[in-house]
Amino acid sequence: MAVQALWFDGQQAAVVDRPAPELRAGFALVRPSLAGICNTDLEIIRGYQTFCGVLGHELVGQVARGPAQWLGRRVVSEINFACGTCEMCRKKLGRHCPTRSVMGIVGQDGAFAELVAVPVANLHAVPDGISDEQAVFTEPLAAAFEILEQIDLGPGVEVTVLGDGKLGLLIAQVIAQTGATVLAVGRHEDHLAILNDRGITTTLLPDWDVARRDVVVEATGTLQGFTMAVAATRPRGTLVLKSTIADQAPVDLAPLVIDEISVVGSRCGPFAPALAALAAGAVAVAPLVAARFPLADAVQALERAAEPAMLKVLLQV
Amino acid sequence: MAVQALWFDGQQAAVVDRPAPELRAGFALVRPSLAGICNTDLEIIRGYQTFCGVLGHELVGQVARGPAQWLGRRVVSEINFACGTCEMCRKKLGRHCPTRSVMGIVGQDGAFAELVAVPVANLHAVPDGISDEQAVFTEPLAAAFEILEQIDLGPGVEVTVLGDGKLGLLIAQVIAQTGATVLAVGRHEDHLAILNDRGITTTLLPDWDVARRDVVVEATGTLQGFTMAVAATRPRGTLVLKSTIADQAPVDLAPLVIDEISVVGSRCGPFAPALAALAAGAVAVAPLVAARFPLADAVQALERAAEPAMLKVLLQV
Repeated sequence: MAVQALWFDGQQAAVVDRPAPELRAGFALVRPSLAGICNTDLEIIRGYQTFCGVLGHELVGQVARGPAQWLGRRVVSEINFACGTCEMCRKKLGRHCPTRSVMGIVGQDGAFAELVAVPVANLHAVPDGISDEQAVFTEPLAAAFEILEQIDLGPGVEVTVLGDGKLGLLIAQVIAQTGATVLAVGRHEDHLAILNDRGITTTLLPDWDVARRDVVVEATGTLQGFTMAVAATRPRGTLVLKSTIADQAPVDLAPLVIDEISVVGSRCGPFAPALAALAAGAVAVAPLVAARFPLADAVQALERAAEPAMLKVLLQV
Repeated sequence: MAVQALWFDGQQAAVVDRPAPELRAGFALVRPSLAGICNTDLEIIRGYQTFCGVLGHELVGQVARGPAQWLGRRVVSEINFACGTCEMCRKKLGRHCPTRSVMGIVGQDGAFAELVAVPVANLHAVPDGISDEQAVFTEPLAAAFEILEQIDLGPGVEVTVLGDGKLGLLIAQVIAQTGATVLAVGRHEDHLAILNDRGITTTLLPDWDVARRDVVVEATGTLQGFTMAVAATRPRGTLVLKSTIADQAPVDLAPLVIDEISVVGSRCGPFAPALAALAAGAVAVAPLVAARFPLADAVQALERAAEPAMLKVLLQV
């Protein structure tokens, strides 16, 4: 059986027919209904990783083959495929398993396809109250929740979120839920308006009167953003580095020592609190959807997603 | 009255006669007996800071003028001169007071002189059991103890200390005191032998079989050291950035995000535990003394201190 999939051959992406994935032991085959395009997908196409295969790691879908208790259920899937036995896995940190593969990123075909193979251990059932359009945000929302796993946030903590892209908008909402004081700084009035509608204070970058705060989240993915974030973190404060910065320009690390700033790298996060927040309507994700394309038009979808200031582009499979 | 002092005019250092410092309110005048040359002094001479004045910030001496209860006492002095009233000072973090000046580094004459003015609040009496040669290490030893203020260390924590210079040798000893497992990595067999004599495991850099550890302390002050330190920190581990890195070469920050590493900048530290460790003989500092010069020969002393692999050079005032 063949399935339609967005295939990246290391040079360019194209929609092609591929053999359906085999059902390996411990795996399920999921038929995505919606899949989201992430900046990581765009970076892979630009050569950021050495990945060849089916792209995509944000999905909601239905289990088509696998254990009886999962068949037909609506699911989302964690993206790190861990060994389950190493020291990291035993600490429930399979996201850092040194031999892990990652759906659509490292060594595993991804979700921009009519069928994707995922470990049963990675599946999470989606509660009925969550729409597909919400559920497809579970993975990036979990990445935002990862920050709460790493640092203490709550009333009395002053936080600046730098960047009003897809991830920044989720992070600002998640941190605001803790009771911390959040200021979101960005370049796009329409993006920041999504946060204003949720009662979150925002400012456009040119109007930003930089006051150094306890916690600064860098979510611009640029070195300029990192430098701004360092300057905006108070002495002994914490800078959360939430997006990988692809370019390697000279960085001045001395201010980290002089002001004793902690830089906390932050990547994938826990799905359970993300699903709970979606079920409770605590985080608005629908306003982040900018466009939808059928899987057959996935190449155009990637092009749209790469346009400046673009929010979430979804694929309908 | 004139006093002899090592004066840096922004271009070069020379021993000159300077007017004796005035006794301002809240200050004492200390006559140093020994003063230590720090890499920061060398960096100032190389133009790292915009400081002009008397160099030096590591000293032990005797109070020559000031409040009656301090007169004649043997003292060491903290180096950050804080306002005492701002938010940071109220949190007992005067080391981060935004309007602070710093002895021999920012806006205040330093200790390479026959008299130095320091705030009475910065003085610590030196217990009788501590020799001058030990006491002059209080300031750099306090910088090593700062790490214990910032992160949890103890039995079961595996630590690598990168760099066997003056600071690395103090850091390895301080961390070993906590019961943590310490591996010190360096380039100098004779430096590492000081640690071996204290029961600390060491390895020469070319022989280092890099195993990723919970905590890595970067004490080489080089970007190469920083890059090695990132690679030697386990996922979710902590990299302590202990020395300012003067050169700004391109740095790849992506591994911090992928492995969720925390980078903790660390600078000046608390004097009390440093003095307690010296009194208890818990940290060996005498083997770190490489040379002594009279203050009159301070320029030669700086040259000696700048030689490769040089440990502590002291000035006798």
